[in-house]
Amino acid sequence: MKIAFQGEHGAYSEQAVFDYSGEVETLPCQAFDLVFDAVTSAQADGALIPVENSLAGSIHQNYDLLLKHNLFIVGEHYLRVRHCLIAAPGVKKHEIKKAISHPQALGQCIEYLRKHQIKPEQVYDTAGSVKLLKESGARDTAAIASRRAAELYGMEILEEGIEDNPENYTRFLAIRREAQTPPDEAKTSIVFTLKNVPGALFKALSVFAFRDLDLTKIESRPLQGTPWDYLFYVDFVGAEHEPRAQKALDHLAEYAEMLRVLGSYPRFNFKG
Amino acid sequence: MKIAFQGEHGAYSEQAVFDYSGEVETLPCQAFDLVFDAVTSAQADGALIPVENSLAGSIHQNYDLLLKHNLFIVGEHYLRVRHCLIAAPGVKKHEIKKAISHPQALGQCIEYLRKHQIKPEQVYDTAGSVKLLKESGARDTAAIASRRAAELYGMEILEEGIEDNPENYTRFLAIRREAQTPPDEAKTSIVFTLKNVPGALFKALSVFAFRDLDLTKIESRPLQGTPWDYLFYVDFVGAEHEPRAQKALDHLAEYAEMLRVLGSYPRFNFKG
Repeated sequence: MKIAFQGEHGAYSEQAVFDYSGEVETLPCQAFDLVFDAVTSAQADGALIPVENSLAGSIHQNYDLLLKHNLFIVGEHYLRVRHCLIAAPGVKKHEIKKAISHPQALGQCIEYLRKHQIKPEQVYDTAGSVKLLKESGARDTAAIASRRAAELYGMEILEEGIEDNPENYTRFLAIRREAQTPPDEAKTSIVFTLKNVPGALFKALSVFAFRDLDLTKIESRPLQGTPWDYLFYVDFVGAEHEPRAQKALDHLAEYAEMLRVLGSYPRFNFKG
Repeated sequence: MKIAFQGEHGAYSEQAVFDYSGEVETLPCQAFDLVFDAVTSAQADGALIPVENSLAGSIHQNYDLLLKHNLFIVGEHYLRVRHCLIAAPGVKKHEIKKAISHPQALGQCIEYLRKHQIKPEQVYDTAGSVKLLKESGARDTAAIASRRAAELYGMEILEEGIEDNPENYTRFLAIRREAQTPPDEAKTSIVFTLKNVPGALFKALSVFAFRDLDLTKIESRPLQGTPWDYLFYVDFVGAEHEPRAQKALDHLAEYAEMLRVLGSYPRFNFKG
């Protein structure tokens, strides 16, 4: 079993692959479109792609790629992003004067760094910052990255969970070449467009409200080329094959100009 | 007049400030929270903050900061992101073997770079990549950044608009310490939470649909700490002080657990 992800070995996306699928073989890809190509061409059996982060928002690019490719969502996973302060073996925390990482990771630890008077310095990648640190041999510098990146490069974790906001989650979708029928409580992801008339969205949402189908995500996005028209992403609780969901989707098709079911999949189980 | 923005001089955000406000004084800030602090403390008269990109999605962090601070949205601006291939004066395009920039900018030009057999190399910032290139004196390397960054460092633009997808827009909000009453056709931005019961969102949207108030944005976002509850961002056409909008907001307050009006402001005028 080979699972594709975007980034280098040690990236948070690779961590998510192992958490979700166990110790499978991973295929690092430089860009998101190459992740989709790897699955389409059967170079990989599947992939795990990030679609939203609790602080940074939805990643529209991956929704575009879902619409462009004929692949299916078969699962979801939420990764709690826990940034680690990583240094060379033997280095003590009080020796650290500088921290290197991707700008987003540095931004998410800015209060911690200010409190400990550590100067942030931007580099291109979280896992890459550990690699750079190891090569430099510096003892006054730490990298900020995942636990996995520290282990991969034989470096030490001085502190784990240094992010200012502990509610830092990234939601990943597992994608495959074939759709699956989820055995348990399921979620279904759809994308649709509506005629640009007042109240169109209200009618569209009525198909779920009238059938007591819970929505877990709704997002409008201006359509490329026509900034007054919108693409809507909706996730609802239920599987596509269940009669209630089937009727709601048939009903929505009456209003929608375009409607695509991206997949039904078991709902992620938040513990606690 | 001094306007704060996040990034270095030459950043796309600074370009947006000049496009929106004319030739004002700018105040570069390292992080988004420092931009808000600069306005709150009157170090700057206002700020321009990015809230969504047509490819990358909404920037939740800036919505969090809007909720945390007592500032108001007084305007919006859409910046068409046009990436430039930038080199040292006299360098010809066929000499370029490598391009340096922020990973997101490189990702947005990946097809162009493949077609021209230019190898991408990640650095921490778009404007910073031009600075690095100038310092290195390399003639086989280009930077990918804004027109303004090229001008700032006295470098040459080999090609403008090299992004693979021309529909690359970033939406910015202008914020001030005091709310304004928009003179023309307005938009209003609100944030609210609802009781977690089926159909709650449907009821909430009915207050706009019943009054023929058009929505231009809707987005749900899991609330921090309680992943089953949601924060909703809604933009609608109309100003807060107009009777129809006022009635809709009063009606929404009956369902909402929390409701905050972030500001009413003139609607951005897309040309063509």
